[in-house]
Amino acid sequence: MACGMFVTLEGAEGVGKSTQLRLLKENLEAQGQKVLATREPGGSAGAEDLRQLLLFGKNPLSARAEILTHFAARYDHVDQVILPALKAGQIVLCDRFTDSTMAYQGYGRANGDPAILSLIEALQKQLGLQPDITFLLQAPRAVSRQRLAARGAPTDRYEQADEDFHARLADGFAHIAKAEPQRVVVVDTSVHSAEQVNAQILKDIQTRLAHAGG
Amino acid sequence: MACGMFVTLEGAEGVGKSTQLRLLKENLEAQGQKVLATREPGGSAGAEDLRQLLLFGKNPLSARAEILTHFAARYDHVDQVILPALKAGQIVLCDRFTDSTMAYQGYGRANGDPAILSLIEALQKQLGLQPDITFLLQAPRAVSRQRLAARGAPTDRYEQADEDFHARLADGFAHIAKAEPQRVVVVDTSVHSAEQVNAQILKDIQTRLAHAGG
Repeated sequence: MACGMFVTLEGAEGVGKSTQLRLLKENLEAQGQKVLATREPGGSAGAEDLRQLLLFGKNPLSARAEILTHFAARYDHVDQVILPALKAGQIVLCDRFTDSTMAYQGYGRANGDPAILSLIEALQKQLGLQPDITFLLQAPRAVSRQRLAARGAPTDRYEQADEDFHARLADGFAHIAKAEPQRVVVVDTSVHSAEQVNAQILKDIQTRLAHAGG
Repeated sequence: MACGMFVTLEGAEGVGKSTQLRLLKENLEAQGQKVLATREPGGSAGAEDLRQLLLFGKNPLSARAEILTHFAARYDHVDQVILPALKAGQIVLCDRFTDSTMAYQGYGRANGDPAILSLIEALQKQLGLQPDITFLLQAPRAVSRQRLAARGAPTDRYEQADEDFHARLADGFAHIAKAEPQRVVVVDTSVHSAEQVNAQILKDIQTRLAHAGG
């Protein structure tokens, strides 16, 4: 592992990832930490080109090709942005990573097809970089829908997907959290204020930093 | 395996792949075979979008991300074009396939880096489709350079690469041919006429079709 710390935020749309990432960056920087905030798909110049194809492309890729394209963007992001920052000792905060590919493509779109799950696992294994800690943000679907409506942002392919898809997505994230309890911390963002939620996340990161001697 | 036959043509630029592919299609169709002629990178709508990024993109991808993008295009091409044609009993002729990724990215660009070769092997293994027969076309570099100059086609990123690159590329193709002599047939296109070369290739395909009961 590199000497920095790699933190990812995961979860469905509207659960508060962007807000938590922004607050986390502010709070860590206020403590004197060097922080790189980034997001997927995208995060490097080449990955942003691939993101355009994935989110707004007119020619839908096969399920397997879509997964490969997500990982192509991820490999570029890791090689050109994340690894150099970690090697420089920075804390990297990333909005979405492999868990999103597993939840959206593996469980949401492919409905847990074992061949697709095994492809994603093989690509993650070849990548050779796992987050040190992942915060899986959750909120009841009624709350996240309300937040998305209030945001009024242009909807992409995933935000237009139906409720069955969202149920499979939630199952996928829950499955990941259960399989890797050491890495994945589940956080409900609907009960407390964004500031209170962030204080809890910050505390978890500080504990891990202390243990790592950071 | 599907019930058709999957034939690939490989080799550096200017060795005669396009000519041989065109003649092969004409000759096989004259014998009543159903033939699909295609090429990589590209060959399906989504793969063509990825091809544009690979050949003319302004933001160079990391070595690993470039390989993933080649395979993303390949998976789409296989899933949406090649496998359906094979399942319909057609002969699929493809200008370039995984051997080109191995030769260009693995040997040419990454100079045989074991981590890169292992990534390409893992992606090919996950793909689950190998050509039934591959013709590796070769010509002395002086001959292929002359052909390229005569063609006067716009040069892409690879055609501009230097002579050291082309030497590593030739080594890569030679290595593949040596490792898989059952699949890869080496053909020198500089000694005989294009028609004579094609007659030889056609004979090899017919022998394999007869053995396969096609």
